[in-house]
Amino acid sequence: MKGKTVAHSRAVMSQVMLPSQANPTGNVHGGEIMKLMDTTAYVVAARHARTSIVTARVDELLFHTPIFVGALVTCRAELGFVGRTSMEIHVRVEAEYLEQEKAPETALTALFTMVALDKNGVPCPVPPLILSTPEEQERFRKGEQRYKLRKSSRKQSGQVDMQPNNQ
Amino acid sequence: MKGKTVAHSRAVMSQVMLPSQANPTGNVHGGEIMKLMDTTAYVVAARHARTSIVTARVDELLFHTPIFVGALVTCRAELGFVGRTSMEIHVRVEAEYLEQEKAPETALTALFTMVALDKNGVPCPVPPLILSTPEEQERFRKGEQRYKLRKSSRKQSGQVDMQPNNQ
Amino acid sequence: MKGKTVAHSRAVMSQVMLPSQANPTGNVHGGEIMKLMDTTAYVVAARHARTSIVTARVDELLFHTPIFVGALVTCRAELGFVGRTSMEIHVRVEAEYLEQEKAPETALTALFTMVALDKNGVPCPVPPLILSTPEEQERFRKGEQRYKLRKSSRKQSGQVDMQPNNQ
Amino acid sequence: MKGKTVAHSRAVMSQVMLPSQANPTGNVHGGEIMKLMDTTAYVVAARHARTSIVTARVDELLFHTPIFVGALVTCRAELGFVGRTSMEIHVRVEAEYLEQEKAPETALTALFTMVALDKNGVPCPVPPLILSTPEEQERFRKGEQRYKLRKSSRKQSGQVDMQPNNQ
Amino acid sequence: MKGKTVAHSRAVMSQVMLPSQANPTGNVHGGEIMKLMDTTAYVVAARHARTSIVTARVDELLFHTPIFVGALVTCRAELGFVGRTSMEIHVRVEAEYLEQEKAPETALTALFTMVALDKNGVPCPVPPLILSTPEEQERFRKGEQRYKLRKSSRKQSGQVDMQPNNQ
Amino acid sequence: MKGKTVAHSRAVMSQVMLPSQANPTGNVHGGEIMKLMDTTAYVVAARHARTSIVTARVDELLFHTPIFVGALVTCRAELGFVGRTSMEIHVRVEAEYLEQEKAPETALTALFTMVALDKNGVPCPVPPLILSTPEEQERFRKGEQRYKLRKSSRKQSGQVDMQPNNQ
Repeated sequence: MKGKTVAHSRAVMSQVMLPSQANPTGNVHGGEIMKLMDTTAYVVAARHARTSIVTARVDELLFHTPIFVGALVTCRAELGFVGRTSMEIHVRVEAEYLEQEKAPETALTALFTMVALDKNGVPCPVPPLILSTPEEQERFRKGEQRYKLRKSSRKQSGQVDMQPNNQ
Repeated sequence: MKGKTVAHSRAVMSQVMLPSQANPTGNVHGGEIMKLMDTTAYVVAARHARTSIVTARVDELLFHTPIFVGALVTCRAELGFVGRTSMEIHVRVEAEYLEQEKAPETALTALFTMVALDKNGVPCPVPPLILSTPEEQERFRKGEQRYKLRKSSRKQSGQVDMQPNNQ
Repeated sequence: MKGKTVAHSRAVMSQVMLPSQANPTGNVHGGEIMKLMDTTAYVVAARHARTSIVTARVDELLFHTPIFVGALVTCRAELGFVGRTSMEIHVRVEAEYLEQEKAPETALTALFTMVALDKNGVPCPVPPLILSTPEEQERFRKGEQRYKLRKSSRKQSGQVDMQPNNQ
Repeated sequence: MKGKTVAHSRAVMSQVMLPSQANPTGNVHGGEIMKLMDTTAYVVAARHARTSIVTARVDELLFHTPIFVGALVTCRAELGFVGRTSMEIHVRVEAEYLEQEKAPETALTALFTMVALDKNGVPCPVPPLILSTPEEQERFRKGEQRYKLRKSSRKQSGQVDMQPNNQ
Repeated sequence: MKGKTVAHSRAVMSQVMLPSQANPTGNVHGGEIMKLMDTTAYVVAARHARTSIVTARVDELLFHTPIFVGALVTCRAELGFVGRTSMEIHVRVEAEYLEQEKAPETALTALFTMVALDKNGVPCPVPPLILSTPEEQERFRKGEQRYKLRKSSRKQSGQVDMQPNNQ
Repeated sequence: MKGKTVAHSRAVMSQVMLPSQANPTGNVHGGEIMKLMDTTAYVVAARHARTSIVTARVDELLFHTPIFVGALVTCRAELGFVGRTSMEIHVRVEAEYLEQEKAPETALTALFTMVALDKNGVPCPVPPLILSTPEEQERFRKGEQRYKLRKSSRKQSGQVDMQPNNQ
């Protein structure tokens, strides 16, 4: 399979946050932003693999600042690492208030791991990632470390420690 | 401050998944489930702290099985660890198809970290957690380890490695 | 068909009320709560009959107190009476404000009548209801009375007295 | 207070049913229609009383035929009876499929009881209802009977028989 | 094909504007009203042609006054002109505040052009329009002028002058 | 007031179209796309004027191709002309299907006219537009023509010819 660059699949999604996306406090509901991040990561993965895509895991999802209704939220995502069938995507959300002339602020960041699926819903190989800069190479190397660590310590539910209801 | 048990704040939220919550594939949008998980973790934190609450981070959010439209989704959450102002909450999502007599399946799990805020939006102390079983004690100890690890390696955006747009 | 207990199908659904569910006054829209009640009654009926389910009628839907945005709303429902193909379900909605340490208040109650449908959309028999307490027996008896009363006075549109538009 | 006719406050609301309003079966969610009925009854009550309005109860809500996505749903409502502060409103929902040249069908009917509230949220008197036809007079008389019956057998939760959770 | 009158397909749709339809300023989002206008124009076109319908263009969409949450919005639409396969529909939106005894105000107006499609998605002939008044005849004549003008100056993207991204 | 370039306020908004945005046919509801176009035009106007913004009119909104659920829709907008208090914005919507390696297609185009409002809701002056290319100058000139034409033929409701309901 022919490799593709990081730039090939980079994605930027924007939305103006509406009152219908608020939580009871009046800020934007965290779940609404997570939904936007998931969609942006999906766009990156689908552009790289050109297959069906499922989200496999989210790590290090950090809320840096709250987002208010009316913000222009921009979510940017790009590939950091690809395994055989999985892709680790770096996602950054920025919020900007349009009536002020001020630089956007980073509001959330996260690592999304997406998996390519073939027509039968089985994980399938993705193209290699062409790394164009030393920074991309370093980021790939760190992603590979995380990937191997997770593979070796594979267990059903990560560090969540809670019995299912049916037991 | 008087301690409270894990049982005091345990929360269970249920929803039947509607077509309006589907992604283009027809399965339930991952973001919709994350929104439900965030809300359930919020209920636990608010019951324990009786203050305003913000989500600080999500870790190890794992998608175990896809969820289909029509599923009865049950999200259960409980406190694993409490720091001075933060609370680590274990969240498990189960999906059940009502027209079949079959046990629910675990669909997602995650660790949510929520922070208590006072009237001025400043982090404020939360009650101690009363641990009632050896399992709760062991889970607390592991949560404390993660808490210390994160404190020592504190950096702005976790392992996400992506320049903000404004630089 | 083997009977099932009331406990077997009892259902509890919870939601935190969001600004997107408000009416123009800022309280929660009554229709949003009715939708939650309908869904909870559906869960009870589907668990008892394990078939497709339609709502046939709603009676005595009472609004006891308004519900405000931010409330944790819990809807509980259980079977009171079953006929040959229909099920009468008692539904109670409680609202709780999480930042206050205060017991939940009853906000709405109603009786929902649901009908089991087979694969062709035709009403089909449901399992008998096993009654475990004198209270359940008394409630069943009253449900049966209402059921017989409605059967005997069957008319097209209940007590609604309004000509259809096409006449 | 000057009386107003039934025609003065009569209301008609229409919507084309969208996929976002479907239940998991693909039909329109009953709760969506109840929401439309509640809104139409609200319009009637607000036009008659010109005050804030709350829904007090819904009776005899009957589902006559299912409604499919794509239907043009028309909800018509008018006053049948007015008490001192309450108004009983007859509501009829009709569904029409636009690509067929066919009369609309009655899909649901119900009686909504709405209460007028003053600026302090306290029930306040509504204008008398001017009855223009023998049918309106007969309907008023029956509404008055129901009103008196309910007043005499007033209890907290109608015929719903289910203990609140907090007892 | 037998002609049909303007009255035959005239449509009126109403909605009470909810907080979930607000823009960040708190007024009703213009896009929500455009969605209602599009739906009302669709109802007119479907009643006239009894086929599938697509929106082809919108012209002269004017915002006369802002609409506030809580308004009863009434959208009325009727046929002005029909070509062979297309229909020009005049649309007017009025807003009314129910707690005040005051005439509704015109909030938006627009011309929608809809096209009838056969089973294969190909434009197909629509019935002639029977004109019943001199006003309807004059309006038809002006619509025909606009129709001919657009046909003669047909170009891909009207007066929008912006390169597609992929060039 | 200091002028700003076209590039300064150019905006790009993207969304993946979800089943909740479909019309009854299963395609994306035209109103949903109009809502996205309105929002993107708002972002351009707010970036240029840094004030409150209202939509004044939409012209030549053309639907070139239908959009299907699952499409990545990208809406791009930029200033063509500015008057004293109004701004004419060219908007183009493109649809792309991610599982295919194929260039995006133009789906809709339109001209939006937005007006800047001061704190009291009164139209206020906007910065001049700095034109950087002959194409931008030509586009400005054409926008100015349209602007003057509309000013001279100012009437209440454009070419819409339909009596308000209250007359």
